[in-house]
Formats: sequence, structure tokens, C-alpha cells
Amino acid sequence: MSLRDRLSLQSLLKGGCGLHALGTHLLIELRDCNRSALKDLKIVEEVMVSAARYAKATIVDVSFHEFNPFGISGMVVIAESHLSIHTWPEYGYAAVDIFTCGDVIKPEDAAQYLIERFGSRNPSIVEMKRGIISCSNEKLPHKVCDVGFQMVS
Amino acid sequence: MSLRDRLSLQSLLKGGCGLHALGTHLLIELRDCNRSALKDLKIVEEVMVSAARYAKATIVDVSFHEFNPFGISGMVVIAESHLSIHTWPEYGYAAVDIFTCGDVIKPEDAAQYLIERFGSRNPSIVEMKRGIISCSNEKLPHKVCDVGFQMVS
Repeated sequence: MSLRDRLSLQSLLKGGCGLHALGTHLLIELRDCNRSALKDLKIVEEVMVSAARYAKATIVDVSFHEFNPFGISGMVVIAESHLSIHTWPEYGYAAVDIFTCGDVIKPEDAAQYLIERFGSRNPSIVEMKRGIISCSNEKLPHKVCDVGFQMVS
Repeated sequence: MSLRDRLSLQSLLKGGCGLHALGTHLLIELRDCNRSALKDLKIVEEVMVSAARYAKATIVDVSFHEFNPFGISGMVVIAESHLSIHTWPEYGYAAVDIFTCGDVIKPEDAAQYLIERFGSRNPSIVEMKRGIISCSNEKLPHKVCDVGFQMVS
């Protein structure tokens, strides 16, 4: 790798903490969960909404649905993006996504809250950066951080 | 790696085509898009709903919201999981997720449709397997594939 390449790579890193991106996306695998919780529509919705509040997110819309013979899908649309969950109570498994943008909320806190509330004994988390669109790694302003932020509809 | 480990690894693979999982999750980076499309609530909603229909998904709920000064967030809840989008028209960028389960629908077709409709000149897709919970790699039945499937609420 040439010096130029190394400098270019360094310019993409922010103190070894990763790249500046528009969004942070946590893909959370909740295995070995409390199966009764995963099949209860009211519990799943309450836990997901509470997780959004716990992360200090601004809730815009909530949509949860139960399926036969089992399983719940739900979304919490937040001003900072979204939380989603799909449960397979028959396997004690739930797939949760927490997609956030801006510096205000802490998705990792919401993830830990969800792990505890669903009693996952074997969770895993993958963090994906979404929207790495500046090769100079300048910090990109996010709409939700703008002073003029408000929801239109 | 021991022979036992190799055999165990082989048992996890299905003909080199990957692992059996409960869900398939496409993380789609739509860069260099048509900016006017990304800031139009009606267009973004119509394209996402059409993508779900294009993939033969069963639409359960739709929720799209516009933010000031710009940007749209939207979710299409489907019986087979969900589609989501967050747009940054100021950067010509949209983050799209297509989370599906079952063998019926083809998320890659929906992804190609979205790339074309938003005019992305620099898209990328990452496929994540969600819910790999069987080490024997047996094919796990999905609720939506069950004959008795119906939505409860």
C-alpha cells in the first residue's frame, strides 16, 4: 500500500472508531428467548415501543401484527429512522433491527434493553454503517439534527 | 481444522448456496439517485408498495412520513416480513431494507426494481441471513408457508 493509499485510508477513519455514515444499523439476533413473550402481541409491541423511548427516540408511528399459527411482525417508525421485529416463538428467536441516524439516541442501549426484556440467552449484534457517502469522511449533517426539524406528515 | 470440523462445516452448507435461515435480509445502498424522486412522498410510497407487489409479497400495512427540511421514512409491513426506506435527497441517497422469509417471494427482484425506479447510478446490496438456528442445516418451516396461514390482527 502506497503512502498516498495509507493517508487516504487514514482520512476515512475517525480515530479508529469507524467511518462517518448517515445511519447506524444494528442487526440483532435474539436466540433462546422467552417464547411466551415472543408470541404475545401486546408484550412485543410494549417492549419495542419502550425500547424506542429508552433510546430517547421520537416515535412517529407504530404497527404490529400477529400471524397464525404463530409469530409477530412489528415496526416502530421513529424520527431517527426505525425499529423492527419479527418473532418465531416456535424457535425462541426474534430478528430485531434498530436503524438510527443522528447523534442524539443510543441504539446500543435499546439493544441491551431488548435482550433483557425478551430474555435472550444467546444474542448477537452486527453493526452496519449505512450511507457512507463522503470519501473525505467529513461529518455529514443529518436532517433530524437540523434546528428546523419537524414532521410534515 | 479437523475432519470432524470440516464435516460439521459441510453439513451447514447447502450445495455452496449458503445456509438455511429463517429470513433473508437485503441491505441496499442506493447512491446517486434521482433526487427529486427521493423527496416526493407520493413517489417514494408508490415505488416501495409497487416493489412489494412486484416481489409477490402480501402487504399488511404501509406507513410513510416526510420530514423537514427534507427526507422520507417509510415502511411496508408484509406477511413475509418488511420493506423499509430512509431517503436523504440532499445527498441523492436512500437506505433500503428488504427483509423476507419463506420461499415464495423474490427480494432480489424487488431490489432491482427499486434501483431502476429511483435511478440509482451507484447501488450496492449486502445479503444477510437472519435466524440461522439449526446447526444441522435442516430446512426450517416458516409460518407464512404454513397452509393454515392467516393474519390475526
